[in-house]
Amino acid sequence: MTRFVLIGASTATARIDGISAAGTNPEAMAHTPSVDLEIVAYGQPVQSPVVPLSPTGCPTPAVVTRAVRERRGFDVLALDAGLACETAAPTVSLGGEAGGDIRQSRPVESAADIFDSARQLGESLPDDHLLIGETIPGGTTTALGVLTALGERATVSSSLPENPLTLKQRVVEEGLDASGLSPGGAAGNPVEAVASMGDPMLAAAAGVTVGALDSGKTVTLAGGTQMAAAGALVRHAGVDSPLSLATTSFVAADETAEIRSLAADLDLDCTVTDPAFDECDHPAMDGYVAGEAKEGVGMGGALALGRETLPMAAIHEQTLAVYDRLSTDKAAQQASDQL
Amino acid sequence: MTRFVLIGASTATARIDGISAAGTNPEAMAHTPSVDLEIVAYGQPVQSPVVPLSPTGCPTPAVVTRAVRERRGFDVLALDAGLACETAAPTVSLGGEAGGDIRQSRPVESAADIFDSARQLGESLPDDHLLIGETIPGGTTTALGVLTALGERATVSSSLPENPLTLKQRVVEEGLDASGLSPGGAAGNPVEAVASMGDPMLAAAAGVTVGALDSGKTVTLAGGTQMAAAGALVRHAGVDSPLSLATTSFVAADETAEIRSLAADLDLDCTVTDPAFDECDHPAMDGYVAGEAKEGVGMGGALALGRETLPMAAIHEQTLAVYDRLSTDKAAQQASDQL
Repeated sequence: MTRFVLIGASTATARIDGISAAGTNPEAMAHTPSVDLEIVAYGQPVQSPVVPLSPTGCPTPAVVTRAVRERRGFDVLALDAGLACETAAPTVSLGGEAGGDIRQSRPVESAADIFDSARQLGESLPDDHLLIGETIPGGTTTALGVLTALGERATVSSSLPENPLTLKQRVVEEGLDASGLSPGGAAGNPVEAVASMGDPMLAAAAGVTVGALDSGKTVTLAGGTQMAAAGALVRHAGVDSPLSLATTSFVAADETAEIRSLAADLDLDCTVTDPAFDECDHPAMDGYVAGEAKEGVGMGGALALGRETLPMAAIHEQTLAVYDRLSTDKAAQQASDQL
Repeated sequence: MTRFVLIGASTATARIDGISAAGTNPEAMAHTPSVDLEIVAYGQPVQSPVVPLSPTGCPTPAVVTRAVRERRGFDVLALDAGLACETAAPTVSLGGEAGGDIRQSRPVESAADIFDSARQLGESLPDDHLLIGETIPGGTTTALGVLTALGERATVSSSLPENPLTLKQRVVEEGLDASGLSPGGAAGNPVEAVASMGDPMLAAAAGVTVGALDSGKTVTLAGGTQMAAAGALVRHAGVDSPLSLATTSFVAADETAEIRSLAADLDLDCTVTDPAFDECDHPAMDGYVAGEAKEGVGMGGALALGRETLPMAAIHEQTLAVYDRLSTDKAAQQASDQL
């Protein structure tokens, strides 16, 4: 049996202007991971105040993951690795706090504790196979930080159509300076890489994966360059078991991400699924077709899982059903805000 | 769609000698609600150290609820209303702490906060129907305390074959004295009844129910006299919407419980399901047939839900499969303890 482990967390790095499109504005973005967990758990936001949309209206990939769940059915375990806002989704707390800006010296003070709790959980889960995804705005920048600190290929994707890579690189350079690290300076020390340059999600994803692999489970990292960075941490923890990465064609098409090369470097078996959203001809999906969002909330892994038994047309149909549910909610909420 | 809301909590009242059979000994009993949540979430204990058995070896009713879930499938939302021990099951925390001994004056200081958080959650959940169950050792004694404080029929069931009713009544009398309350002294004031004489589960169950009913959902209280006490709190909150109680034939057969009269007093529509465990002819089920455990972890409600689509033989088969899984785990664990 497969269990989908969805790790939510926050990093203050997301507040840097121009870094992330995972929310219509900075206040809304702070709620994004908490709402994403609710959408996957309940099919709609429950207590969180906003529907996660990009500034141009592209819906969160949680919509796609939930759609696959509604048609195919799979168990979800949501982990709170350090959320800035409350969520009404049931979670296991790993005892972490929201991460700081990586331009500071120790953005993830509790990296070791999060990693250990997550490893223990990954070890003790009864499943044969874990699919591990994430929701953390700003996470590609912290992923770039970790890949750089580990001395791996420093390439990441973006939730924006144009990857603000120069900005991310400058942020990472400031972070390395603040932490007194050189590129590759944390090689072989994954906890140090996260504590200095990462985010709480990365500590949790690496920990769950190491625990699961150590106890004989198979693991698929469901995501793009952020989950590849989690895979890099696993490799730098000395674990060389087979490990897979399942992402979307949007990440694969992003040349700045170099996802296939990054996966090959890290000996990650890479699966790419094309959701064929261009066939939907629906404004909600146009953002994806134009290169927004691309990945997140385990979308690539959920699509791969869904495609085992479902035609893509069924996934499209359900994705639009979930989207409509959210839009109705949103309209009702905006109407009530105006009263 | 039905969602099963399972509320876990602890009360120090359970530590009074002879009150509860929800664990082989007091140390084990402290873990019971945390492990019950894991069994319903994962089909077996995950991080908690003990399998909940009565002193004679009767397994936790979580086994039955999980069995129905494995055959029929239903969504679970576990709430932590105040657990004494950690759980690896995903939960929404209501911000409560483990309850004190009701022989003290304010065993549930945070009753109002738990009630409010739970009400808000019950209101915002997207489901049409909630089935609400509990796991809290010692909970029939606190239920007796609450029913007495509200001035309702003061009858409760027991996880022991012989209900230690005299002991429970003495504990409740001491509690009333400590709280300066007379029987019926908290009528119309459900939060005061819980704060003085109840447990965190009761505050949560009443809150979720009030919120759900207020927002047009239907609610089935899945359990015996403890869930009836939650129903009493709902009535004393001034809510007179239709409300159901689904319990087992073991509770209905317990004359000390007077469950049908209690339900009628509170205008609760009462469904009783007989799991026919005598037909199993299996030592694991003999405890139930002899009157142990009787209810808990939503067993009566899960059975009623399961019987909508499943023959009882399928529920028996799966219950024994879950039990065997737990026993294997337990044997492995004991072997490893002896190393």
